Amino acid sequence: MKLMRVGEAGREKPALLDSDGKIRDLSGHVADIGGEAISPAGLARIAAIDPKSLPELAPGRIGACVAGTGKFICIGLNFSDHAAETGATVPPEPVIFMKATSAIVGPNDTVLIPRGSEKTDWEVELGVVIGKTAKYVSEADALDYIAGYCVSHDVSERAFQTERAGQWTKGKSCDTFGPIGPWLVTKDEVADPQNLGMWLKVNGQTMQNGSSRTMVYGVAHIVSYLSQFMSLHPGDVISTGTPPGVGMGMKPPRYLKDGDVVELGIESLGSQKQSFVADR
Amino acid sequence: MKLMRVGEAGREKPALLDSDGKIRDLSGHVADIGGEAISPAGLARIAAIDPKSLPELAPGRIGACVAGTGKFICIGLNFSDHAAETGATVPPEPVIFMKATSAIVGPNDTVLIPRGSEKTDWEVELGVVIGKTAKYVSEADALDYIAGYCVSHDVSERAFQTERAGQWTKGKSCDTFGPIGPWLVTKDEVADPQNLGMWLKVNGQTMQNGSSRTMVYGVAHIVSYLSQFMSLHPGDVISTGTPPGVGMGMKPPRYLKDGDVVELGIESLGSQKQSFVADR
Repeated sequence: MKLMRVGEAGREKPALLDSDGKIRDLSGHVADIGGEAISPAGLARIAAIDPKSLPELAPGRIGACVAGTGKFICIGLNFSDHAAETGATVPPEPVIFMKATSAIVGPNDTVLIPRGSEKTDWEVELGVVIGKTAKYVSEADALDYIAGYCVSHDVSERAFQTERAGQWTKGKSCDTFGPIGPWLVTKDEVADPQNLGMWLKVNGQTMQNGSSRTMVYGVAHIVSYLSQFMSLHPGDVISTGTPPGVGMGMKPPRYLKDGDVVELGIESLGSQKQSFVADR
Repeated sequence: MKLMRVGEAGREKPALLDSDGKIRDLSGHVADIGGEAISPAGLARIAAIDPKSLPELAPGRIGACVAGTGKFICIGLNFSDHAAETGATVPPEPVIFMKATSAIVGPNDTVLIPRGSEKTDWEVELGVVIGKTAKYVSEADALDYIAGYCVSHDVSERAFQTERAGQWTKGKSCDTFGPIGPWLVTKDEVADPQNLGMWLKVNGQTMQNGSSRTMVYGVAHIVSYLSQFMSLHPGDVISTGTPPGVGMGMKPPRYLKDGDVVELGIESLGSQKQSFVADR
């Protein structure tokens, strides 16, 4: 299933995209796309509904594909070729950092370039949405705790991230720096999360063109690994790292300016399109 | 006012501590201690209630002093003498990192020493609770955005934090590593947040005995600074750094073991007491 949230920010309705590409209103069945609704039992209940029995919704603004995200965890330097382009070596175990959940926006919302920013950069990433509380889970069982996948844009301010006194959070958490969606694609529709094409364009020019195949640490390993440090809860989102082609890795580096348009997508998971606008 | 949350985990009732030390039930007036209830208008409404008109609650488990925390932001190395004991220099601007909100527990709840941990350490910190959305606010205006203060225990696993591949989040976010409370003390009761005694004992032995006076970056600066990078929202908690005396700084270092008891407190803000137990 392709689950989504449609409507103005803060008032989205839960919905699903049916096989004809129509948006169907789930608000008569679930409160939102998140929490219990994306647990294994919750997803089974939604799957049992005939989409044609649901009211059709007019296309409009698409919200973040999951609500009530408690943690937005990112994996750093998780593609060997991306690590190389940033001048870093592949870490001996996953590097994790947090993005503020207040950065989360819809997939096509305007992204604000923060005041003082000179190095706002792009990163297409595979997002993993947790559906069941995970603590100390094995890699073999890890996929059982996943509700599905989504496109995640880990927008990053490189100067804030690396030149402003320690810890990456500062450059990752700015308002609007976390577009997720358009859909939470349930895992039954994603045969192999480690074999998905990933792309990103800036003003129509392809900048990233990779595959989740070249991840250093795969999805199952990441979920298991994280669960050794902290419980993962339904609605938590894990952004699993970006393939090569970020602005920081270009010679000379290239960063986003007011008026730039970024489009990005992942095979089977849909695409996003954002205008970048200076936050005056 | 001293606002608090009383009851079993996940079912706490909002309450206040009256001038006689009695716990008074606020659940007839506010849904919880968080969000709108701790905005300037919300706090004014609570302040207008005669505490004696409220039902008395029996003392019981105390929950985290604020609900619905979207961000749990910490300031690193914010006391010059603590920076020195960890072998770090004082940073040129605040170091910020995130603690998972899923780590938040009540002030006297059991703290779990995670599996594989050998370096679980203590840190008494002044917690700042945001009451009004703050974005690009000046240092002069910053205190207007604060609802109040609390004791925050930034429990830290040093090996996870610094020896397990980059970024501190990994050692800061374990379940139960974020006791906050007992009270959210509204800012009108804290004449000077930069002059509060702070202490921590392990098994009755004083380990930390400092003051918020020796912070490098004060509360107003921190709120203003953070708001340049991301919006702060009501219920967000900022843990502002620890004075000297952590286990990592001892010669030889000393870490917490199964069965240890930690007590900590801050002048005017109350105290916490936790048993540390191995998470088997």
